[in-house]
Amino acid sequence: MSLKKLFKPKSIAVIGASTNPEKIGHQILKNIIDGGYKGDIYPVHPKADEILDLECHSSVTDIKGKVEMAVIVVPAKIVPSIIEECGKKNVKAAIVISSGFSEVGDKGAKLEKELAETAEEAGVRILGPNCQGINNTVQNVCATWPLTTKKGPISIIAQSGTIGAALECWAEEDNIGISKFAMLGNRADIDETKLLEFFSKDRTTDVIALYLEGVKNGRKFFEVAKEASEKKKIVVLKGGRSEKGAEAVLTHTRSLAGEYKVFKSVCKQAGLILVESINELYDVCKGIAGLPKPKGKNTIILTSSGGSGILAADAAEDLDLNLMDLPEKSIKRLKKKLPSECIIQNPIDLTGSATAEMYDEAIKVLARYKDVHSIVIIVGDPMPGISDVIKERFERLTLVPVMLGGGKEEVEEKKKLQEEGIPVFSTPENAMKALSTL
Amino acid sequence: MSLKKLFKPKSIAVIGASTNPEKIGHQILKNIIDGGYKGDIYPVHPKADEILDLECHSSVTDIKGKVEMAVIVVPAKIVPSIIEECGKKNVKAAIVISSGFSEVGDKGAKLEKELAETAEEAGVRILGPNCQGINNTVQNVCATWPLTTKKGPISIIAQSGTIGAALECWAEEDNIGISKFAMLGNRADIDETKLLEFFSKDRTTDVIALYLEGVKNGRKFFEVAKEASEKKKIVVLKGGRSEKGAEAVLTHTRSLAGEYKVFKSVCKQAGLILVESINELYDVCKGIAGLPKPKGKNTIILTSSGGSGILAADAAEDLDLNLMDLPEKSIKRLKKKLPSECIIQNPIDLTGSATAEMYDEAIKVLARYKDVHSIVIIVGDPMPGISDVIKERFERLTLVPVMLGGGKEEVEEKKKLQEEGIPVFSTPENAMKALSTL
Repeated sequence: MSLKKLFKPKSIAVIGASTNPEKIGHQILKNIIDGGYKGDIYPVHPKADEILDLECHSSVTDIKGKVEMAVIVVPAKIVPSIIEECGKKNVKAAIVISSGFSEVGDKGAKLEKELAETAEEAGVRILGPNCQGINNTVQNVCATWPLTTKKGPISIIAQSGTIGAALECWAEEDNIGISKFAMLGNRADIDETKLLEFFSKDRTTDVIALYLEGVKNGRKFFEVAKEASEKKKIVVLKGGRSEKGAEAVLTHTRSLAGEYKVFKSVCKQAGLILVESINELYDVCKGIAGLPKPKGKNTIILTSSGGSGILAADAAEDLDLNLMDLPEKSIKRLKKKLPSECIIQNPIDLTGSATAEMYDEAIKVLARYKDVHSIVIIVGDPMPGISDVIKERFERLTLVPVMLGGGKEEVEEKKKLQEEGIPVFSTPENAMKALSTL
Repeated sequence: MSLKKLFKPKSIAVIGASTNPEKIGHQILKNIIDGGYKGDIYPVHPKADEILDLECHSSVTDIKGKVEMAVIVVPAKIVPSIIEECGKKNVKAAIVISSGFSEVGDKGAKLEKELAETAEEAGVRILGPNCQGINNTVQNVCATWPLTTKKGPISIIAQSGTIGAALECWAEEDNIGISKFAMLGNRADIDETKLLEFFSKDRTTDVIALYLEGVKNGRKFFEVAKEASEKKKIVVLKGGRSEKGAEAVLTHTRSLAGEYKVFKSVCKQAGLILVESINELYDVCKGIAGLPKPKGKNTIILTSSGGSGILAADAAEDLDLNLMDLPEKSIKRLKKKLPSECIIQNPIDLTGSATAEMYDEAIKVLARYKDVHSIVIIVGDPMPGISDVIKERFERLTLVPVMLGGGKEEVEEKKKLQEEGIPVFSTPENAMKALSTL
């Protein structure tokens, strides 16, 4: 079975929906409603008549209509019996939010095994248990928390709900958005390999962010990853690189963290982009999601801030980007168009007296040369009008906007770019990192 | 002379004040006014009668009152003669914003030499040329741009206006604030050593952020730095680590970037904290500025997000923080106070069903043990009320708040902490880095 019923169900039952606004069983129902889900929603509650204006049912089998997907938020010990009922109701996929399975020890592990067996017999594919659900902005299915709805090209597979949610929140704030999000939990059934395969075929996904603690089936995963990385960019952050971290991994998701060196080398072979922090994971995804792909490694830094240009140059060297010599003919043209205080080398330093017009002139000159593959535009001062300059040529050239130290004007100009879905980086180092992965 | 007249002048002349709101000569005058400066302000303009409601003077010598400090924004070639006039007027310190000196080549270098000699003869200490001025929030002197006014314990010395300004802007946004900021420019007179000495004696400064491209007088600088680092924490970012970066340094501020390895080892000897990116520079300063100093390296991670806890544990190992075993007796107490799904080891994982009350219970138990030096509080879900829990014990224990993936509730709780001047980190890695430098 594909995971279609999990991500695009025509109807959803929330089993364990709660009348108490502080409970997950209430919040997740509310997020499905507030996220604009268009199918039928059935809250299941043993006693309540209504939750959030929706009629309640005492069990999933009591629901009259068809149920394609169930979200389960009930105490661990009754989850297997609930799954059995789901099977009877012909529910195809279930998200098990409930915790208290293998992550709490042997007793829980036994219960998880029972759950997996029951699900298989019942013909219900399950995500979790001990997970934070899924989000599919494209079909308005926010069966997770917090609520995010901005549509975009990033899809996320995470062994941590929080890390996935952080990416969703930042992508919403930056107006970049996500396509799909799935939190793995204990992987009693659906795992990272299955999801990666599914997302790699998803038309609305351009880049896949992965947070992993351990891979369930290494050989299979890397086989699938290798194929997937030919279709989509895949960015990976690995938790549990240290000894103490690996110990925590064992209790968090019962994964074996494994040797990081080995993981690193296999990722490289499979064409995955490995990053070392949450910030990097996000910035690289944001770059891939929003920047036009450059035709090569040749880059020019155009800056009003000498210092930021230097830090960008330092980063370029670390990241194997080619800080090219300026094309011979461009030097003469740039000198003609720009005031004498400008420093015409790479980085091109427009100095503190830079204006949006000067950026425009410089970009116009550089755009004439085919071997200029990308321009990193560092705006280190208040610069009214710079957003229009960047917008005009953003698509044709790969322009990488960086803004810092520009006060209120920066906030305004940044917002104008974000409204167009153009990513803006807040430090030169992050921008160079993102560019290097394109 | 101390730098008192530069940072706390009783009166300021802005020579080259402009009627055009787009010019620096207008903006800097406006920022001095809008920043709430309480002394006399004299715009100097050859023709205008009034700028921003202030009476203009045709030259500094025409001003009737005393002038202690001058901000100079006139074309490079007339700067030396202006400084001469300043000397006649008994002006003690001048900020030369104007560019067009050694950074543009030999001709400029000659002019800069002339400027330095004139200033020395005239008895005027100068900052710059080619600089972005100073800020002193404590005495409301914002002779720079953009305007920032939030008072706090960070002081900044930067060879890049933008990098300094970025720190100022972020510190204002986070309600941490700064004490003083000085942008070095070409260092014709006042240099990083002089400023470091001055800031190290400043009562309102706890931490000094340095962005350097090259040190003017290495031996003297590290002598002063060694002494200064016994009084204040000093955090250093070095630009020009790469070959291309070093080339750009030469044209940016005529500094010699030098060998990074050597710089690194001398910094270590002098007790300076070296960082590798602007983000790190800010986060470390923010941590020092806002977190109570822990009594030792023993730390416990308390999290609602297993994954974030694992990344924090990975970072702890890299940073030589001691992720201690939980005190024997605390384990029993924690098990009693917390629901059974919680994982009682270090990191302590309260799981996705965590509540503010659970954090409170756990912190209360851990606070009993003297060898628990710090607790990293990772809030990875919407968590109403968590700010009150953190506020209550923030001072007594070193609590390090991290918030991510918490949607709207996170924004609210974060704001409540920031209003109290409590720093909140947005990723576990940054928080651990900041903690490790305390």
